[in-house]
Amino acid sequence: MRIFSTLVFPRRQQQQIFNLRQFQTTTILRKPISIAPIQIPMDAEQSLRQSLSEKSSSVEAQGNAVRALKASRAAKPEIDAAIEQLNKLKLEKSAVEKELQSIISSSGNGSLNREAFRKAVVNTLERRLFYIPSFKIYSGVAGLFDYGPPGCAIKSNVLSFWRQHFILEENMLEVDCPCVTPEVVLKASGHVDKFTDLMVKDEKTGTCYRADHLLKDYCTDKLEKDLTISAENAAELKDVLAVMEDFSPEQLGAKIKEYGITAPDTKNPLSDPYPFNLMFQTSIGPSGLIPGYMRPETAQGIFVNFKDLYYYNGKKLPFAAAQIGQAFRNEISPRQGLLRVREFTLAEIEHFVDPENKSHPKFSDVAKLEFLMFPREEQMSGQSAKKLCLGEAVSKGTVNNETLGYFIGRVYLFLTRLGIDKERLRFRQHLANEMAHYAADCWDAEIESSYGWIECVGIADRSAYDLRAHSDKSGVPLVAEEKFAEPKEVEKLVITPVKKELGLAFKGNQKNVVESLEAMNEEEAMEMKASLESKGEVEFYVCTLNKTVSIKKNMVSISKEKKKEHQRVFTPSVIEPSFGIGRIIYCLYEHCFSTRPSKAGDEQLNLFRFPPLVAPIKCTVFPLVQNQQFEEAAKVISKELASVGISHKIDITGTSIGKRYARTDELGVPFAITVDSDASVTIRERDSKDQVRVSLKEAASVVSSVSEGKMTWQDVWASFPHHSSAAADE
Amino acid sequence: MRIFSTLVFPRRQQQQIFNLRQFQTTTILRKPISIAPIQIPMDAEQSLRQSLSEKSSSVEAQGNAVRALKASRAAKPEIDAAIEQLNKLKLEKSAVEKELQSIISSSGNGSLNREAFRKAVVNTLERRLFYIPSFKIYSGVAGLFDYGPPGCAIKSNVLSFWRQHFILEENMLEVDCPCVTPEVVLKASGHVDKFTDLMVKDEKTGTCYRADHLLKDYCTDKLEKDLTISAENAAELKDVLAVMEDFSPEQLGAKIKEYGITAPDTKNPLSDPYPFNLMFQTSIGPSGLIPGYMRPETAQGIFVNFKDLYYYNGKKLPFAAAQIGQAFRNEISPRQGLLRVREFTLAEIEHFVDPENKSHPKFSDVAKLEFLMFPREEQMSGQSAKKLCLGEAVSKGTVNNETLGYFIGRVYLFLTRLGIDKERLRFRQHLANEMAHYAADCWDAEIESSYGWIECVGIADRSAYDLRAHSDKSGVPLVAEEKFAEPKEVEKLVITPVKKELGLAFKGNQKNVVESLEAMNEEEAMEMKASLESKGEVEFYVCTLNKTVSIKKNMVSISKEKKKEHQRVFTPSVIEPSFGIGRIIYCLYEHCFSTRPSKAGDEQLNLFRFPPLVAPIKCTVFPLVQNQQFEEAAKVISKELASVGISHKIDITGTSIGKRYARTDELGVPFAITVDSDASVTIRERDSKDQVRVSLKEAASVVSSVSEGKMTWQDVWASFPHHSSAAADE
Repeated sequence: MRIFSTLVFPRRQQQQIFNLRQFQTTTILRKPISIAPIQIPMDAEQSLRQSLSEKSSSVEAQGNAVRALKASRAAKPEIDAAIEQLNKLKLEKSAVEKELQSIISSSGNGSLNREAFRKAVVNTLERRLFYIPSFKIYSGVAGLFDYGPPGCAIKSNVLSFWRQHFILEENMLEVDCPCVTPEVVLKASGHVDKFTDLMVKDEKTGTCYRADHLLKDYCTDKLEKDLTISAENAAELKDVLAVMEDFSPEQLGAKIKEYGITAPDTKNPLSDPYPFNLMFQTSIGPSGLIPGYMRPETAQGIFVNFKDLYYYNGKKLPFAAAQIGQAFRNEISPRQGLLRVREFTLAEIEHFVDPENKSHPKFSDVAKLEFLMFPREEQMSGQSAKKLCLGEAVSKGTVNNETLGYFIGRVYLFLTRLGIDKERLRFRQHLANEMAHYAADCWDAEIESSYGWIECVGIADRSAYDLRAHSDKSGVPLVAEEKFAEPKEVEKLVITPVKKELGLAFKGNQKNVVESLEAMNEEEAMEMKASLESKGEVEFYVCTLNKTVSIKKNMVSISKEKKKEHQRVFTPSVIEPSFGIGRIIYCLYEHCFSTRPSKAGDEQLNLFRFPPLVAPIKCTVFPLVQNQQFEEAAKVISKELASVGISHKIDITGTSIGKRYARTDELGVPFAITVDSDASVTIRERDSKDQVRVSLKEAASVVSSVSEGKMTWQDVWASFPHHSSAAADE
Repeated sequence: MRIFSTLVFPRRQQQQIFNLRQFQTTTILRKPISIAPIQIPMDAEQSLRQSLSEKSSSVEAQGNAVRALKASRAAKPEIDAAIEQLNKLKLEKSAVEKELQSIISSSGNGSLNREAFRKAVVNTLERRLFYIPSFKIYSGVAGLFDYGPPGCAIKSNVLSFWRQHFILEENMLEVDCPCVTPEVVLKASGHVDKFTDLMVKDEKTGTCYRADHLLKDYCTDKLEKDLTISAENAAELKDVLAVMEDFSPEQLGAKIKEYGITAPDTKNPLSDPYPFNLMFQTSIGPSGLIPGYMRPETAQGIFVNFKDLYYYNGKKLPFAAAQIGQAFRNEISPRQGLLRVREFTLAEIEHFVDPENKSHPKFSDVAKLEFLMFPREEQMSGQSAKKLCLGEAVSKGTVNNETLGYFIGRVYLFLTRLGIDKERLRFRQHLANEMAHYAADCWDAEIESSYGWIECVGIADRSAYDLRAHSDKSGVPLVAEEKFAEPKEVEKLVITPVKKELGLAFKGNQKNVVESLEAMNEEEAMEMKASLESKGEVEFYVCTLNKTVSIKKNMVSISKEKKKEHQRVFTPSVIEPSFGIGRIIYCLYEHCFSTRPSKAGDEQLNLFRFPPLVAPIKCTVFPLVQNQQFEEAAKVISKELASVGISHKIDITGTSIGKRYARTDELGVPFAITVDSDASVTIRERDSKDQVRVSLKEAASVVSSVSEGKMTWQDVWASFPHHSSAAADE
């Protein structure tokens, strides 16, 4: 089930970690190489463990043989030969050991490189206030982060683009509901009962841990550091990692006991695992009698408004509603920095559609797109993600329907236009055991980061589940109608239990019998009708009583009647793309981060290669030296930039121009205008460091055009004289 | 104090209700008339009550006289004369009664009109999904509302403009902090201890009420409906209304008892009033040991980040930080619909400034603005708000300083550009008893609505209070530095208690004595120094011990030393404009709402006269009749509108064009393009209903120019042929 599995916190990550291609440091960020995920060769590792264990046995056996020969005072040549054989075996064992070590540590080195890269990114992000650990002066709170000025600007740009790309271009109905939510709503959605993680407590200190985290840490640690475990043991640990997501509290507890896992900090024993609800609880109003929660997702606000939105849309399907807002999850012990947080921004779409017609009129706009997809079959058979054509994926049935496919395509366009590297973006289909029984199909947009493949967008066909759940709980029908052009004659099954007779026969059990009779499908009912007509009586199993009763002819009438129907009433299906905005932004940081040597070559300079669309500001304006003439010219340009809506900043510090460029590169500002005369200026592009010379008057309009994508930097480079200043960029 | 008083829920409203000009129905919304608030003549009412009570006494006395004459069997002419006099007195009494009734009910009628107007607005808003009571299918929760599609679009436009007008144009540092806030932060800010309202409970049912609401309702009811109360009683009730904001729980409880106020629904007795904290409480993490709250304002997130932001700004003052986000207040019993809600969007600015220099470099940009201001003196002396020039208000000291004045001007521009009627907008200065002791000055932007004058923006000079509070609690200095161009020689007082001697003399009390000695100001210290030098001993009052001790010469050394200082370290002052976005939007709805008769004159049609800046969409495109040629042309226009970023919608329903105009007017869409040929189209302006004819090719660019304010409708009207179609607009 969506809400209990993946977005925003994919439980499946433990499995995916083995799919990770070896991570390559920053160079990859500049020229992405092809990166179909490389499988770490499981079989090689397994056979090495097997072979190591055999070699160990052989060494032991041969040692015993040598000792036996010595004890029996065998002839020296015989003993020498046995010792030579022992040494040979020892050498062989050691060779296998080395090979195994190298396989394990190659993934280990990968993770070291990943961590070093992440540290460089995070360090830059924190130093330049892209984000700030919240409430830092009070030592902070785990899992809560602030966006600082450049982070806010990026978030605002991402959300504006989201609103443009989805809400405006697709004519969606936007709503904005409160975060405070009464219990009844989240009871209906299932969150109150099932939105939990399993927790264990240090039995002495009371410190809480996520049970699956401890088991996962134990298994990966053992696999990475312990060469002596047998191939069978290793296989078992891997198996546990693969299936632990589905463990019951009892199974998880049993494994923790079996492996002797204790509290990481104190080595104290742990409690049995028990479910902890991840919602922040509160109470609405002064009486303390109305329990409420901070919403764990924004979707429910849309479902409860379905009826009004359907009417607003002129009672027409399909239509989509969308919501951007805060969501809250009281994580047991947040890890993974900015990816697993206790409060985050979601952007969710609920596209309501007739379950009998999931075609999409604009599907042809995206049908030709090709990108990495990772269908269920490829995952099950150990293959990797591969480039597929979306149109074919839908026509072959890999993707369930056109509407789902359309959104997959739109999400691909959204993410890549933001600056996500398309080679490190894949659409992974949920396995059968990941999906709820009601879901028709589900795909996650996963982005590769230093933490592995991270689910950033979930795109699910949830059928009619959510609307039905709220309909049942509230008693308000959340349905759509299809008016027929002319009335249709339909044959309808009519089952009429004769309550008086049934009451006489079954007394207190009458209600159960009536309900069971009414619940018969057409086949069952027609069979009963035939039996009653032929025999006058029939045995009937009432499941709610768990017994068989005897139904007589006078107790029920069954018939088929022709009726004229003017409309069809049905619960719409919903297709739900759900975006974790903070996760997308963090992956964008990693994908855009890069380093390059300073001109003197004595240090590495950081830069963020953000596309202008998301860059926190589009342009800086630098008077080359501090003088009034240049500063006046800078102000003129600034006014013009403001009038065309280009966010920018003037930097009049006396620092060297090279340092000012470096400062602005580190914020990811794509263009810099340097004022070095009052007639013309230079425009520098961040990634190439190329500069052109344009007249003072043209500067703002050139930057505006290239920022808004009306022309490319190549166009600019081709149209204006190039400027080279040996001194400038240092 | 800001947080405990006004924004977003002005406690002072009960006072202002008497300042309300008589409310006028919708016509006023079309042509605003001058509306300097009219004082309801208190003195007239008072003297009428006085006179009524005198007349009643006279009637009673004369009645007694008549009876006495009859009893003493006086002569008939004498009795007749007395009766005639009695009737005359009765007539006089009745005339006074009528006059009093008319004065009271004129304000009563006003409120009836206001309510009818509000009902019309709210009805339209709810029907067109500008907003939706949250969780409606579950009977909703008081004080929680959703924004529906047009409401969301308006909110998004208002916030975009806010970001443009404040953050971008003023180069503010935006931050985005979590709503979940640990207790320590709100303890430091004072919210945990003091962010309360006084509550009473129905002693039998447990239903909760705001104590001041019950008292206020009692007083206003009595004043409006009971003619028999004496002028003294009436004056007392009015006095209670004016001062009840400052009542202690005991005073409030005493009044409730004195007036015999009971629970409104059951008439049961009420508990004594007690404080109820208005924050939603929760718990962070799984242990249940970290108490947290949903933030009641966004400002604290900025204060705790002051140090990082100051460094980010290159350690320069002044600078401003800003935050837009959700805030939460668990109201005891929300009333006033969309104005008093439990969750709302705030946009707050904290402008940090050197307390010794509150000038503002851009003040001259706003100095010439003139608008309604309501300074303290005018309020105290019973005058009304008047048009003042902002520059003069600052230079005369009415407004405390230039920076505060600058923000008042910027807020005025912001609100009026959104479409707030400038005649129903005033800036009211806080009275001395409304402000916290530390505040330098405070002005509220109040907007007049059917609920009275509503505080929508608070603009306060809060001095150094907030930074000091967090500095004290966290131990992290939140200060700024001013580096001197060259070191300054300053004479500094140095007090050095000799702890050994003090310890011997005062033992356990030593610490208190040391602290008191160190806390002496210059004058006290120099006096002690002189006394010690002349007498060798001096009596010294230690306030923390509440006793006088004897200080000897060897116990303390006091001197003045010259020191070179390189910088000045100080806590910045903060000037805080704080915007209740939902309140502004609601007032905007009321100011833009209007009705006009349909062409046939048989019904009143609603319209919202939103400026294009905030209108939910800028344009609708109507093919005049359903045919392919027109629909194709409409699609061409739609594509062009999209490419220039103009939000719009095509309406291809076959409804009459008049009905489609009416539908679009009710959403406040400013322009409609009607496609009635494939060469040219008409553009209709909402407010005037005027239409021009333009070529198909020009249509999108004309609408874009006039939507974005590059040209006015007058320009369009002057440039293109007019179109008149008798049939078109109904």
